Amino acid sequence: MTAPHQKRSIGPQTTVGIHPVLVVGCYAPDGRPNAMTVAWSGICSSKPPAVAVAVRPERYTHQGIAARKAFTVSVPSDRHAAEADLFGIGSGRDLDKFAATDLTPVRAEHIDAPYVGEFPLVLECRLIETVDLGAHTLFVGEIVDVKIDEDCFGENGKPDIERLRPFLYDTFGFGYHAVGDRVGTAFSAGRRFLPR
Amino acid sequence: MTAPHQKRSIGPQTTVGIHPVLVVGCYAPDGRPNAMTVAWSGICSSKPPAVAVAVRPERYTHQGIAARKAFTVSVPSDRHAAEADLFGIGSGRDLDKFAATDLTPVRAEHIDAPYVGEFPLVLECRLIETVDLGAHTLFVGEIVDVKIDEDCFGENGKPDIERLRPFLYDTFGFGYHAVGDRVGTAFSAGRRFLPR
Repeated sequence: MTAPHQKRSIGPQTTVGIHPVLVVGCYAPDGRPNAMTVAWSGICSSKPPAVAVAVRPERYTHQGIAARKAFTVSVPSDRHAAEADLFGIGSGRDLDKFAATDLTPVRAEHIDAPYVGEFPLVLECRLIETVDLGAHTLFVGEIVDVKIDEDCFGENGKPDIERLRPFLYDTFGFGYHAVGDRVGTAFSAGRRFLPR
Repeated sequence: MTAPHQKRSIGPQTTVGIHPVLVVGCYAPDGRPNAMTVAWSGICSSKPPAVAVAVRPERYTHQGIAARKAFTVSVPSDRHAAEADLFGIGSGRDLDKFAATDLTPVRAEHIDAPYVGEFPLVLECRLIETVDLGAHTLFVGEIVDVKIDEDCFGENGKPDIERLRPFLYDTFGFGYHAVGDRVGTAFSAGRRFLPR
């Protein structure tokens, strides 16, 4: 066996290293479209297909999601890293983030929430579960539809990650990072370790 | 305003594009160390610091986490992409994944679960919430400690993502991808859109 590497404790930090950057959209209590950037989120179920996003109760977005029981997840490309960052800085209480960034709120097709028109990958979600965890509420949304920019499909007809260009947040270095080179194929690279 | 891009619906798929690859560890009912790879997960709370991982009830890992109320999250570097893939293919019921990949199960310091010694970033988690979502159970674990390989700290004394080299799963292309170039600074890049 290889010797395990020597490790140093850094205490109970909230990190898995690198986190997808997502923008959660809803209508605010006053009816205006609002959105906030989250890095704390994840797909959480296949049936129903569902995604979970963590939002602090004091956020304006929290009120919007709780009231209309709906939200969107818009996945920005790295072309819009600065705009996505703004959605994580300001509050919709005193800033129209769509107007500030010159981005377009688009009413979702199936649920009562807006998404960011210029972002290439969008999930429309119906709130199905609300888990109060303390400082954050975990909103679980059933994914009722996914929409992708026409120009982000590859020649094989499937969505192409190189065209979508989602980006990531490094909690240690406060950096946004692009998706890098392909280093393996899932459900394949590990087969060589299976007993023959 | 920029015109929103034309989008095509692909139906209710479980994706946000790109997903961190994590390996969830626990002791199996028979006491042996076991682990499985997940892409469906995410940090979900700051206080308590918590992470959520989605596991199907029929997985061997599900039994282990439910029984001991503890799990680890080991974040592999792309050097171990093939080994991490194996942890997603086989079941601990009939395969000792640690032995197959020649990796080392290390008993966690604070909780009753093993982590992967060779993976550079490890979370030790105490189960605090179990959310049944249908096909998957969302296990929410309080992060009681994070451990990082000594050689993954940068010269500024902070963990360095370029040394940790976590990697990502693209659900559309079934590809694993490295972390790419830095494209911006969080909580900074968007400030130019703030009103003066």
